[in-house]
Amino acid sequence: MTDATTPLQLEPEFSTDERRGLYKAIHQRRDVRGQFKPDPLPDDMLRRVLDAAHHAPSVGFMQPWNFILVRNPEIKRRIHAAFLEANTEAAEMFTPERAAQYRQFKLEGILEAPLNICVTCDRERTGPVVVGRTHQRMMDLYSSVCAVQNLWLAARAEGLGVGWVSIYRQERLKEILGIPAAIIPIAYLCIGFVEFFFAQPELETAGWLPRLALDDLIFNDQWGKQ
Amino acid sequence: MTDATTPLQLEPEFSTDERRGLYKAIHQRRDVRGQFKPDPLPDDMLRRVLDAAHHAPSVGFMQPWNFILVRNPEIKRRIHAAFLEANTEAAEMFTPERAAQYRQFKLEGILEAPLNICVTCDRERTGPVVVGRTHQRMMDLYSSVCAVQNLWLAARAEGLGVGWVSIYRQERLKEILGIPAAIIPIAYLCIGFVEFFFAQPELETAGWLPRLALDDLIFNDQWGKQ
Repeated sequence: MTDATTPLQLEPEFSTDERRGLYKAIHQRRDVRGQFKPDPLPDDMLRRVLDAAHHAPSVGFMQPWNFILVRNPEIKRRIHAAFLEANTEAAEMFTPERAAQYRQFKLEGILEAPLNICVTCDRERTGPVVVGRTHQRMMDLYSSVCAVQNLWLAARAEGLGVGWVSIYRQERLKEILGIPAAIIPIAYLCIGFVEFFFAQPELETAGWLPRLALDDLIFNDQWGKQ
Repeated sequence: MTDATTPLQLEPEFSTDERRGLYKAIHQRRDVRGQFKPDPLPDDMLRRVLDAAHHAPSVGFMQPWNFILVRNPEIKRRIHAAFLEANTEAAEMFTPERAAQYRQFKLEGILEAPLNICVTCDRERTGPVVVGRTHQRMMDLYSSVCAVQNLWLAARAEGLGVGWVSIYRQERLKEILGIPAAIIPIAYLCIGFVEFFFAQPELETAGWLPRLALDDLIFNDQWGKQ
């Protein structure tokens, strides 16, 4: 697979500032639903962010993702309508007290964000048999999720806010964006410069759910053994 | 949800070095299957890496992940056996020529890596109705995948190699690690210091599949419109 001539990384070490930058992006990344400014993204910046997504890990190196850049106001308006319809249904699934709080949440920035990006997964991109997908059929979907997370972190380092919208009927989204039946939408993202970033996740600030203690989530050698 | 008293990030800007660090982690991250050194991970370093995973985005802030740290040689040996069994099955799924090449690939470092980590998803962690999961049932699985990607990037910035093993029968892995029926294993990771990092993905170097051109993956407003 590799031999003595296979090129290695020439500068594998991270400086203190470089390492801090990685952790800063991870800890200061927020799910942004408001505060978007209308300014368009510079082309070179958008390219860096998409290239970061394209360098996500992918099962069997299949790179199953595509990126649909949505800027057309009419398309955005139709997707926003699909969100509103699903969000009304969603609110009714909660208990009455939770539903009242839920309806106050702002959960998307589809119209305000200058750019929306739909990240997809083409499950047939490299044929039916994929290295590493033979026993875990979901691995290609997970690869596209890794691309989303890379995009999100790169955007944060560029000063861009990103929000992941997941409240819509998938068939409706596919119809609006002309996505073929065999392609799976993984994420619908709203992206743009922002007025500010909140220090904490908004659902944490709102008291919806608390941040869990990391120690409670770590087991040793067996599930439940701490 | 938020008001004028909600705390904002005090240092939202990234320096040039910090931004470079984020991109360096993304571009120099490799799926590591060999080259592991036996040295254990320092506790504070492991903590930073797990805390990075714990700060992934999660649907409805449900934080559905757990981290099973596997160091016990007997447990690792049983998981390695599960890999070998599945990998034999996997090879037989390819065409004869592809199968011959496949059998030469080293696809895991379970026994050599000083630490293995199983990242899971607890779909019932915060009850049946979750903000943002009402119409996309997979969102909680995707949250745990984002935790994996955060872990992987943090590990890279610390000089640690990570390999994602996906060739095993899920029921076998759950049995070996005592994972309850309702919990979904998302990733089985091998992690440790490494002798070196390859410049390119190993499947690319081996000529198994090429890196796709980013331009071919970008559409505008509609699927297929470039």
